[in-house]
Amino acid sequence: MTDRYAADDLIAYAEALFTAAGLDADKAAIVAPLMVEADLMGHTTHGLQLVPPYLGALADGSMAGSGRPEALADRGPVVSWDGRRLSGVWLTATAVELAVERARQYGTCTVSIRRAHHIACLAAFLERATRHGMMVQIASSDPSVASVAPFGGTRAVYTPDPIAVGIPTSGDPILVDISASITTNGLTGRLHKEGRRLDHEWVIDAAGNPSTDPAVLFTDPPGTILPVGGIDHGHKGYGLALTVEALTQALAGHGRADPPEGWGAGVFVQVWDPAAFSGVDAFARQTDWLAEACRSNPPRPGVGKVRLPGDGALARKRAALENGVELYPGIVDGLQGWADRLGVAAPTAL
Amino acid sequence: MTDRYAADDLIAYAEALFTAAGLDADKAAIVAPLMVEADLMGHTTHGLQLVPPYLGALADGSMAGSGRPEALADRGPVVSWDGRRLSGVWLTATAVELAVERARQYGTCTVSIRRAHHIACLAAFLERATRHGMMVQIASSDPSVASVAPFGGTRAVYTPDPIAVGIPTSGDPILVDISASITTNGLTGRLHKEGRRLDHEWVIDAAGNPSTDPAVLFTDPPGTILPVGGIDHGHKGYGLALTVEALTQALAGHGRADPPEGWGAGVFVQVWDPAAFSGVDAFARQTDWLAEACRSNPPRPGVGKVRLPGDGALARKRAALENGVELYPGIVDGLQGWADRLGVAAPTAL
Repeated sequence: MTDRYAADDLIAYAEALFTAAGLDADKAAIVAPLMVEADLMGHTTHGLQLVPPYLGALADGSMAGSGRPEALADRGPVVSWDGRRLSGVWLTATAVELAVERARQYGTCTVSIRRAHHIACLAAFLERATRHGMMVQIASSDPSVASVAPFGGTRAVYTPDPIAVGIPTSGDPILVDISASITTNGLTGRLHKEGRRLDHEWVIDAAGNPSTDPAVLFTDPPGTILPVGGIDHGHKGYGLALTVEALTQALAGHGRADPPEGWGAGVFVQVWDPAAFSGVDAFARQTDWLAEACRSNPPRPGVGKVRLPGDGALARKRAALENGVELYPGIVDGLQGWADRLGVAAPTAL
Repeated sequence: MTDRYAADDLIAYAEALFTAAGLDADKAAIVAPLMVEADLMGHTTHGLQLVPPYLGALADGSMAGSGRPEALADRGPVVSWDGRRLSGVWLTATAVELAVERARQYGTCTVSIRRAHHIACLAAFLERATRHGMMVQIASSDPSVASVAPFGGTRAVYTPDPIAVGIPTSGDPILVDISASITTNGLTGRLHKEGRRLDHEWVIDAAGNPSTDPAVLFTDPPGTILPVGGIDHGHKGYGLALTVEALTQALAGHGRADPPEGWGAGVFVQVWDPAAFSGVDAFARQTDWLAEACRSNPPRPGVGKVRLPGDGALARKRAALENGVELYPGIVDGLQGWADRLGVAAPTAL
């Protein structure tokens, strides 16, 4: 039986750890709930598990704890920032807030951020736009890391290149959170550490042979994660990855062509206000129809029920808010060392 | 040995057919080269093969040959049109042109179109933005047709939902053209007609069993095309499809929630001007690096060379412009009946 914690206690804990480590209080107040939000949604590789490495980054200066992004350009519906290695979670939340405000005025808004630190769980930001009736798309890539090869190739060029989309309906929003590769650095790293295998041949070794063993990513030279579509139709994931690379680095004017600066992200945020197109009701009429057609779809053999992206995460979140958050094994212990060092009290299990 | 034709002769032929069938001359002058462009790029299911059904649609009035779209909204960086069942190819080309112009002013621009007729080959439009140094994304869906089920389901809810992205570099642009399903209506229809099979299990029958036989799509009830990622990780293609549905129908305020109007499209065009972000040179520095890293990537066994999306299409186009266009079997015959009826002379093979 794993311990359960109150979400608010975990947020207060993370906030105390971040401020103790030197993150501005106003930033910690935004970052902490977003870390816990990922755990609430079940994205356990991108929630509190990331707090220890973030604290390490604040300690060694690779994440800036103070200050504002530098505005590189502002045309109203287009804003470009240099993130100055500030918390990517804070930068992205701030960008979504700005994009929502600007989209209300212009109908759409793009915010591009170079040199953010890591931005954690993209899905966690989506409701910050959809609750205002806006459609939002967030993409990120890490120009200092490469684990995915172009389709047909064997040498890693880019990151899994996630893209998340929030789509409002009259009820729960549709929360899409996919990457351009079949699996992620977080999951393959965790399975490798635990000596486990992937469900299918989602990786190739350094010579290009398909494998279910995440260990092939840790050889020298390393293998690579396959693009979405795999060996069969991986040109689709490849095309999506190139799109994300361009949106997150080329627009930002900083990326793999520059000297690596360490763990971080180029970020792309786009918001559309349905009110500026055909109206909020007309938008929801279509997305409500779509949601119902998917949820009521007769399932394939072996599938219990057809769900919408986000349905599972929102159900997990509701349950966790009611019954407490069950953290993935190892997360509590990983935080304890930092809590001792920073003099922060760990929360009590429920 | 198949006959070859000069591209210009094919364009003049298509233009003459369209004007004879009642399409405004200014529209035919834009639509005809775009149909041939698809054949030049090798997208043979979405080029001249579509001219006969387009001529049929003009004849029966399901495609409007004259007039302008109705402006539903215009906020500068956001424009929303009712396409009034005009040629989707003409509407999309006009939308890309407008979006490029507006993006130059605002940094980005979204054009949303409801009630367009079919828009043919998305990739054919991309260079109309990239040649101005702009990044462009085009998506479309047909609310009157459904051939793809949500992941885990068995009843078709939406179309393959293509998305195309043009990314400028210092050299050739990267031209991404993917759909959210593994294969398309065009390809499965053609293979079925020819009694052929798919390379892999890209479809499921009505009960949900994976198959390589496109015939399962033509049973009653029909099977469905699998989303990108297939049985294995089809939640990725599913997420992409929901995104395209929202961008092309919910923003447009017209879609599957409305009574079907026949073969047509909801269209979404977004253009970004790198000059409004970090500058054209900074953009190209990243995309040039990316293009080189992909093209020089050591290939997997059995892969000759790693290519970028668009490399093949642009090479085919250059060859076809130099040596003539070799049309897919059946296309010339398909046009001949219309040429006879409309009194248009067919071009002479080279």
